[in-house]
Amino acid sequence: MIKTRLKRLKEKDTRRLIAVILGGKMLGIVAMLGVIKGFFWFFDTAAGATPMDTVVHQANDLVSPVNTIWVLVTAFLVFFMQAGFMALEAGFARSRETVNILLECVFDTCLCGLLYWAIGFAFQFGAGNGIIGHQFFFLHGMTDSYGSTQVAFLAFFLFQFAFADTASTITSGAMVGRTGFKGDILYSICVSGFIYPIFGHWVWGPGGWLGNTMGWFHSWTGGTVFRDFAGSTVVHTVGGFIALAGCIALGPRLGRKFKRDGGGPLPPHDLTMASIGAVILWFGWYGFNPGSTLSAMDWVGIGRVAANTTLAACAGGMVAVLFVYPRSKKWDLGMSLNGFLGGLVAITAPCYWVSPMGAILIGGIAGIVVPLGVDFMEHRRWDDPIGAVPVHGMCGIWGTLSVGLFASGQFGVPTADGADTTTVVKGLFYGGGTAQLRAQLIGSLTCVIIVTGVALIAMYTIKQVRGSWNLRVSKDGELEGLDLHEHGTPAYHVEFGQGMTYSTPANLPRNGGAFDPVPPTKTTEPV
Amino acid sequence: MIKTRLKRLKEKDTRRLIAVILGGKMLGIVAMLGVIKGFFWFFDTAAGATPMDTVVHQANDLVSPVNTIWVLVTAFLVFFMQAGFMALEAGFARSRETVNILLECVFDTCLCGLLYWAIGFAFQFGAGNGIIGHQFFFLHGMTDSYGSTQVAFLAFFLFQFAFADTASTITSGAMVGRTGFKGDILYSICVSGFIYPIFGHWVWGPGGWLGNTMGWFHSWTGGTVFRDFAGSTVVHTVGGFIALAGCIALGPRLGRKFKRDGGGPLPPHDLTMASIGAVILWFGWYGFNPGSTLSAMDWVGIGRVAANTTLAACAGGMVAVLFVYPRSKKWDLGMSLNGFLGGLVAITAPCYWVSPMGAILIGGIAGIVVPLGVDFMEHRRWDDPIGAVPVHGMCGIWGTLSVGLFASGQFGVPTADGADTTTVVKGLFYGGGTAQLRAQLIGSLTCVIIVTGVALIAMYTIKQVRGSWNLRVSKDGELEGLDLHEHGTPAYHVEFGQGMTYSTPANLPRNGGAFDPVPPTKTTEPV
Amino acid sequence: MIKTRLKRLKEKDTRRLIAVILGGKMLGIVAMLGVIKGFFWFFDTAAGATPMDTVVHQANDLVSPVNTIWVLVTAFLVFFMQAGFMALEAGFARSRETVNILLECVFDTCLCGLLYWAIGFAFQFGAGNGIIGHQFFFLHGMTDSYGSTQVAFLAFFLFQFAFADTASTITSGAMVGRTGFKGDILYSICVSGFIYPIFGHWVWGPGGWLGNTMGWFHSWTGGTVFRDFAGSTVVHTVGGFIALAGCIALGPRLGRKFKRDGGGPLPPHDLTMASIGAVILWFGWYGFNPGSTLSAMDWVGIGRVAANTTLAACAGGMVAVLFVYPRSKKWDLGMSLNGFLGGLVAITAPCYWVSPMGAILIGGIAGIVVPLGVDFMEHRRWDDPIGAVPVHGMCGIWGTLSVGLFASGQFGVPTADGADTTTVVKGLFYGGGTAQLRAQLIGSLTCVIIVTGVALIAMYTIKQVRGSWNLRVSKDGELEGLDLHEHGTPAYHVEFGQGMTYSTPANLPRNGGAFDPVPPTKTTEPV
Repeated sequence: MIKTRLKRLKEKDTRRLIAVILGGKMLGIVAMLGVIKGFFWFFDTAAGATPMDTVVHQANDLVSPVNTIWVLVTAFLVFFMQAGFMALEAGFARSRETVNILLECVFDTCLCGLLYWAIGFAFQFGAGNGIIGHQFFFLHGMTDSYGSTQVAFLAFFLFQFAFADTASTITSGAMVGRTGFKGDILYSICVSGFIYPIFGHWVWGPGGWLGNTMGWFHSWTGGTVFRDFAGSTVVHTVGGFIALAGCIALGPRLGRKFKRDGGGPLPPHDLTMASIGAVILWFGWYGFNPGSTLSAMDWVGIGRVAANTTLAACAGGMVAVLFVYPRSKKWDLGMSLNGFLGGLVAITAPCYWVSPMGAILIGGIAGIVVPLGVDFMEHRRWDDPIGAVPVHGMCGIWGTLSVGLFASGQFGVPTADGADTTTVVKGLFYGGGTAQLRAQLIGSLTCVIIVTGVALIAMYTIKQVRGSWNLRVSKDGELEGLDLHEHGTPAYHVEFGQGMTYSTPANLPRNGGAFDPVPPTKTTEPV
Repeated sequence: MIKTRLKRLKEKDTRRLIAVILGGKMLGIVAMLGVIKGFFWFFDTAAGATPMDTVVHQANDLVSPVNTIWVLVTAFLVFFMQAGFMALEAGFARSRETVNILLECVFDTCLCGLLYWAIGFAFQFGAGNGIIGHQFFFLHGMTDSYGSTQVAFLAFFLFQFAFADTASTITSGAMVGRTGFKGDILYSICVSGFIYPIFGHWVWGPGGWLGNTMGWFHSWTGGTVFRDFAGSTVVHTVGGFIALAGCIALGPRLGRKFKRDGGGPLPPHDLTMASIGAVILWFGWYGFNPGSTLSAMDWVGIGRVAANTTLAACAGGMVAVLFVYPRSKKWDLGMSLNGFLGGLVAITAPCYWVSPMGAILIGGIAGIVVPLGVDFMEHRRWDDPIGAVPVHGMCGIWGTLSVGLFASGQFGVPTADGADTTTVVKGLFYGGGTAQLRAQLIGSLTCVIIVTGVALIAMYTIKQVRGSWNLRVSKDGELEGLDLHEHGTPAYHVEFGQGMTYSTPANLPRNGGAFDPVPPTKTTEPV
Repeated sequence: MIKTRLKRLKEKDTRRLIAVILGGKMLGIVAMLGVIKGFFWFFDTAAGATPMDTVVHQANDLVSPVNTIWVLVTAFLVFFMQAGFMALEAGFARSRETVNILLECVFDTCLCGLLYWAIGFAFQFGAGNGIIGHQFFFLHGMTDSYGSTQVAFLAFFLFQFAFADTASTITSGAMVGRTGFKGDILYSICVSGFIYPIFGHWVWGPGGWLGNTMGWFHSWTGGTVFRDFAGSTVVHTVGGFIALAGCIALGPRLGRKFKRDGGGPLPPHDLTMASIGAVILWFGWYGFNPGSTLSAMDWVGIGRVAANTTLAACAGGMVAVLFVYPRSKKWDLGMSLNGFLGGLVAITAPCYWVSPMGAILIGGIAGIVVPLGVDFMEHRRWDDPIGAVPVHGMCGIWGTLSVGLFASGQFGVPTADGADTTTVVKGLFYGGGTAQLRAQLIGSLTCVIIVTGVALIAMYTIKQVRGSWNLRVSKDGELEGLDLHEHGTPAYHVEFGQGMTYSTPANLPRNGGAFDPVPPTKTTEPV
């Protein structure tokens, strides 16, 4: 065989190929050396020798750089979750509504960025009162670092924008396939500009009532405050329950029959895309959770958060598959994806405070919450094409509550200078009593009740708008398909023969097929 | 429902499943504990206790690690843009030219790496004169860190290679679908080995005339030098205008009719892939711009660059969609993608020197430049299948000029030890007069004129080559499709029935369809 | 043109659009300012001013944060390789086995995470003897940082889990399309729980015989120990040869005819997906190799590893394409992908110890090993649909041996505090004699013989299991297609007309096509 290779090296074409490539290079090098000499007179700037650094740094000078790198890199990962959501949602949906999903994600990201810059960040992270912030509108008055974080202000802003964007995107998941694009713009303004940042202020904002005083409920929890490390409630329950409100206000897609009516979920149109998207989300979660320390100085903490996040995802994905297998006798890919996503959502609140074992239990239970939640939605005749409500809404609740059960009592909060354990978080199972659990219940219930309520009002209001600004696309538009109706193009356009070949192998049964009149073709391709 | 679940847990199959899994584990553990004991004699190495570190570091010892981490991580992100370009270009093209696009991206990356190692880096970043560097050929003579950057030399090399690769890839965008693969090799050698690194030397190289003295134009700008923070000109205008030269030299694809001839752009073949690709590019831009500080010690700077990059993208994406909506009454996905990419290209030069508000304006204007540029290309009958010229070429010019308008006068340059504001960059709108604007004009015009000129010469020269090394594939080859002709395989090969099912729902109108003879089929799938 | 735009701005619809968006925002802002005032009494918490940090750090306090950031970020990248493997394997396979591939990757990741937590990490990185570790079962007894790494224990765990997962995934590559899902579970338990971690202990574990003493072979190598920087042997040879064992035990897919029987490889079903996947793998390799320093304090080392990784990939990709071109006269996309992957696999062992020139040679040779390996597999009638054995198995051997040839004698090992060059690694070509080469031979042969042997036993054992737990799916199941049989759904479900349009341009020959009865259709779409 090697002989053949050597022979080929001797062939004319090969030699010519190599000669041309090498020749081109040589020619260029010679030409350029000529240019170097010839044009030397043109600008006679000598390349200056740069003197080496003589600045003497203190160790403290490095804290802000290190924390800022950490927050930026994790912010990038959180932003990248948009690609994950797009691939996951598009893949799980029908091909006719794909362009709509993609554009909604892109447009909502753009809208969210501008709204968050103008008002969202101010509402959420500006100084104010327990309910809302009112500082930093249009980023006016920003300082080098945000608060005491020793993280560059704009790096912190970017990280928080990426979170807001995530909440906004989750919302669209349960509203796929029948929401008009103008209606989407309207509700997205509500979510990105108001609902998410204001609720977020309650938990993470300076002086927010859930994160600091528990307001009227102060005495009932004995001063223990609500804890949501990276947003099981703030991002996922908020996003998931707004999604539910939209899903209820919209009603199901035309032609969608539910299980108790003899139907079932419409088949996803591209499971490869959906799977890659889900793994991108898992990858992005490594920004979401570990980045929420906002500090790399708490290096033990960021390691713990990252490992807990992983183990919960593993448990969720595995349990979900094993849980539904006995029913269908099929190994369910979609359920494995939503299972590990459910595990990730659940571990988001407790990731800093639990042990690896705790993370596995929390994720594993999420792997049961997801299929039960899907059944529940199906039973209620709520059409949630990608499972946004079970995954984000329901697992968000579970994860939030789990802090009150599994927090191990060893960990407090991360600070810019390292872990602070002066006040630790301890759950019921570790001898902490029910105080934390009660605080978690208050936070989670508040979110479900108030956010869902506000979202229902907003969604039904937009559904009253006449004409094209209505929340739901017209019946004709929906029958035509959102992509053609709203965007004028299908997602895919294939040239058979030249871009795609197909086959229905002659010797194989065609039991799954639906494609009769065409004779089978054989395509061979060179190695 | 829970009862059913519990019942299932009692079922034989489930129990067997669990038993086998657990059994397998247990068996393994027991077996291995046996092995541990049994083979202990085999190699009796005790695992050594490793003594803890006693090195005493100075704070300055940490500057190089921190800067190098930053440059490496951002270099990785810039490299990852290749995946984005591949997905974007392939998705926007026709299915028949997909394999060609994919292989060009891969092959050009490989070629670029080797060329940049051999000569490109030397031309660009070696000491020399104002026109060209001639140090570090084949990386000979490299030191631990590059210059005064306190960044590992090879990390800096990798970062700059990733930039060179980007320029090379942009070029191919406007030449999709009719360039022969051998022709692609020839022009890629010109771009990666010569045009990009030599022009890059002028701006970023040690002593480069645009970045240091402005050469003959020194007095006209009063000593103010050309500023291009991360490459609106160096990477994007260069790439975009070489693309234009190739596009003009090649002529349009066979069968492409332009708008004023009653045609229009050929439909993209996979918008899901294109969208994911565009978001990957956005993600990669977080390496491109923030990484161009080459320093995490300027922690406020990297935060600002990252946030400005984001806001410009948001503005570009949103404005582009809203700008074309009145024309077509359709919400245009492709335009949203090219809009935010245009915003990213535009903010690339000014990202370090402008405020968030400035970034939004710069990005927003880019969102208008892109659709107008697309119209212009269509009007000129230039066939640019993915919009490389409007996005990279035209927005590159706009972004470069915008430094002279929007630079806020607060910021100078990042250094290895932090921000240096001894000389600040100030634009017209912030009271800086027109000096900077004039410098920007010189740099941008120089690029457009010289690079386009050289590229046209190169492209037309390659078009004179006879036989298969010609720039354009033969007519027969193009009619057959580049994938089949050059690569011997279509991109997709689907087994209907077994790998894909399709449907044309019976109760829905089929106005967009083109697929008549097959009866509708219903596919159901288990949850 | 601009006039038309301005005119459009005057149109009713546009104005309404802008009015509604701005109106909505204004309304919201006013409403919220009302809320701010109105509810101020509700919780009168003033946002507290947070006092700035006064902690005084020592430089040594920053070493663990910096090293931990580095290991975590690179661990995330290694994890992300899962998305790459999924896309690559799915794209290279037939559409009928796509869901199976995707779920195997997801499920095996979940399984691997739990097994590695329970036993794998303990076997591999726990203290023990030369053969196996027995500390840290279920992560019991973990400390803040692992050993002397100054990396958070759980960050180190995550990094190593991601490696284990990679090995497990590689294994499945050569077994695509005919492995039963239950059989997959069984062999994955063997790989993730036992084979990988125990072999890994030999090389990287505390006291492992290959990495520390060379056991019985101690005197033959004169004390020189086996070196595998990032896992050419530990991950890739292990994964590739387990894959081979599985491939042999399974036999080829039904209907697969080999070249000498007049057939050839079955065509990949989605080359776009495969290409994106391969580039994701390249991206992930920047975690794999540079992260294996486990230390950013060795900043020169991480730069060198990253650059060497890149150059080897470039050389591999380019050489593989040029090597097969003379045979087929086609530019082979699949070979370019496997070529650069082969280069990456090969450079994985030597990346820390060789020069850039060495890296290029190592990668270039890998670019020849891959196509020869593919030929060899085809000749042996071994059906490896994605080339896992040539790429990972064979290039893994080559890369491991190359340390003994190309190690430049300048570099020792990275430590938590920086590069340690007290003992350097020197290969034959740099005057180091054959000691290192002999050590590499021992390590590589040990791996091939023992791992393949154990894997063959495991695979053939599972092939003896009766019923659905057999390694190979039933004949009926395979004919039906794994996706339908095991998972109950095909990967793709398209609605023609509404989600996809197709065309066979009327004026073009249809020589590659297979789609006759349908008349050509023209689709136009708005810009």
